[in-house]
Amino acid sequence: MEFKYYMPVKIFFGEKCIEKNGSGFSMPGKKAFIVTGKSSAEKNGSLNDVKKTLNSINIPFVHYNRIEPNPSVEDVRAASVFMKESGADFIIGIGGGSPLDAAKAIAILAVNDIDDDTLFGGIYRNRPLPVIAIPTTAGTGSEVTPYSILAFKKISNKKSVGCDAIFPYAAFLDPLYTATLSAATTINTAVDALSHAIEGYLSARGTEVIKPYAMESIRIIGRCIPELKNSAIRNEVRENLLYASMLAGIVIAHTGTTVLHAMGYPLTYHRDIDHGRANGLLMYHYLKFIEPSTEKVKHIVDAAGMKNTDEFGETIDRLLGEKETISESEITGFTRTAMTSKNIAYTSPRPGEKDIRRIYEDSFRR
Amino acid sequence: MEFKYYMPVKIFFGEKCIEKNGSGFSMPGKKAFIVTGKSSAEKNGSLNDVKKTLNSINIPFVHYNRIEPNPSVEDVRAASVFMKESGADFIIGIGGGSPLDAAKAIAILAVNDIDDDTLFGGIYRNRPLPVIAIPTTAGTGSEVTPYSILAFKKISNKKSVGCDAIFPYAAFLDPLYTATLSAATTINTAVDALSHAIEGYLSARGTEVIKPYAMESIRIIGRCIPELKNSAIRNEVRENLLYASMLAGIVIAHTGTTVLHAMGYPLTYHRDIDHGRANGLLMYHYLKFIEPSTEKVKHIVDAAGMKNTDEFGETIDRLLGEKETISESEITGFTRTAMTSKNIAYTSPRPGEKDIRRIYEDSFRR
Repeated sequence: MEFKYYMPVKIFFGEKCIEKNGSGFSMPGKKAFIVTGKSSAEKNGSLNDVKKTLNSINIPFVHYNRIEPNPSVEDVRAASVFMKESGADFIIGIGGGSPLDAAKAIAILAVNDIDDDTLFGGIYRNRPLPVIAIPTTAGTGSEVTPYSILAFKKISNKKSVGCDAIFPYAAFLDPLYTATLSAATTINTAVDALSHAIEGYLSARGTEVIKPYAMESIRIIGRCIPELKNSAIRNEVRENLLYASMLAGIVIAHTGTTVLHAMGYPLTYHRDIDHGRANGLLMYHYLKFIEPSTEKVKHIVDAAGMKNTDEFGETIDRLLGEKETISESEITGFTRTAMTSKNIAYTSPRPGEKDIRRIYEDSFRR
Repeated sequence: MEFKYYMPVKIFFGEKCIEKNGSGFSMPGKKAFIVTGKSSAEKNGSLNDVKKTLNSINIPFVHYNRIEPNPSVEDVRAASVFMKESGADFIIGIGGGSPLDAAKAIAILAVNDIDDDTLFGGIYRNRPLPVIAIPTTAGTGSEVTPYSILAFKKISNKKSVGCDAIFPYAAFLDPLYTATLSAATTINTAVDALSHAIEGYLSARGTEVIKPYAMESIRIIGRCIPELKNSAIRNEVRENLLYASMLAGIVIAHTGTTVLHAMGYPLTYHRDIDHGRANGLLMYHYLKFIEPSTEKVKHIVDAAGMKNTDEFGETIDRLLGEKETISESEITGFTRTAMTSKNIAYTSPRPGEKDIRRIYEDSFRR
């Protein structure tokens, strides 16, 4: 047995956790730069809760609400200019994966004048500013990971910044903030969390210490799946999904993701397919590819409460509904792109170009 | 669901983990104060590995080897005087619970000139020095907890210092260091780890997020128990015990312990019964006391691979061998002492004086 474990984020979980803990909490700076998307943080109540708490402890803040889904390097550079001008010395990211990942990149760029390759390199002269992460979807896990995923024009794909210095300082997870999510977003983000737990468990970098959390996450999401198509999702289910998503985040914080994420990124970058959905569309045939090599796929299927991999795959496919059409030439391009990802090396067994092409083809066969 | 999770220790686990990771690792200071007991760190090879790594990266050190089992407030005060004189700015604790707990207290006292009550108060003007923890027994979990348990004359008992600032900076867990432990120490420390996992799971402060680790720890120790009476314990079992002990440490870092530890402390303080053994002697009737109130005892027994609480209790009793004789007047005194512990409030259901007396009496009935 050999592993490293590092999870320095102070995590607060539960309804009203900002109100209950925020004011007694040592903020990591004197002025906050709040990073959100356009409007959801207002709609779900999280922004208001943060402002109220900051006001109660006399921490001034500025609010930057221009983070678009799948933020690009250019987007976070623009935001970091605002941040520098604001005089803020820590960041509060509120939202789905996009604002949280953006917050981490802004934290680097606000104190490091660096080119794109250095940004993705993960080593910085000045320590990134502290980030407080407040997820409002249950999927990204970004609140507990040292990753920031950015759209990167130079390679026409999404690419990951990863370094321990961008682990959030703290995370506040209030399931009530996920109550206003649409059915589609709830499903897509749940499938994203599931893919984190599954990929972490199957990863060549998977270790003993992440197994209990990966399994628990899969078990919980498996129990929630039948409820995801309901018109109104119960609070208890929302809570379980947010918890499972956090556990899966702890998992990938240690393992990273694998070929499934590498294959999903081009679908999002070029076809604008939601990130969680993109992984979900490929999940069945990813598992079929891994299955002959390891008992672990059986553990996953068992934990999810399914009879076998086929039932598992068909359940995910049904959950996601009608699939997009992907052309042969797109598959050729996406396969080449996926092959360049470092996540391929973390996949066990390591897939070749033919394997990746086949997973795309089998996933989008009509 | 409501919880906090905080585990900032950088954990390295595996054979030769110091050699493999230590030299590339950012030491948290420029000169190390190595704290050990009298001789075991030399015998098991850990001290030599640490010195070799420090030499390879040109970090000077001084070695203080005068930590006795169950260190007292006076012991750690004496050590902190040496530390101040040494000019060291971080501490490496190597050993069982005693040197590790001592290292944390020294880290506080080396930079805070405070009285005993302030030491136990947990709030310090100056941030305690960083500690690297290297366990050489598989029981304490101290390498991943924010606790330092000290013998305290004023109350004629052991008492706990607890604050986030004494979480170790890093922990290196090499199962080879536990290979030279005697059968009795192996058993006592395994039972200590088991009591951490059990008490954490049953604690009124137990939460969803510590459950997977508590259960995994109990499962692993349960599988190891049949091997603990063997004359030679296999390396694989040593490795599993060290891992389970670490998981149980993560658990109590979040929950603290309960009445079982509160009742064990007087047995150690007044009768010199090993700490793990003291908890073990009381474990059966502690569980019998809790059992009528919660299904959780059944979960524990199941995870340990036992049919029922009686089989579980009898297995632990057999493992520990013949029990000490405790007089009625000792039981009266120990009950009073245990009642003053704050851990009582974390026990669910909360035991009264009569309950505690009965657990002592049933545990030591001849």
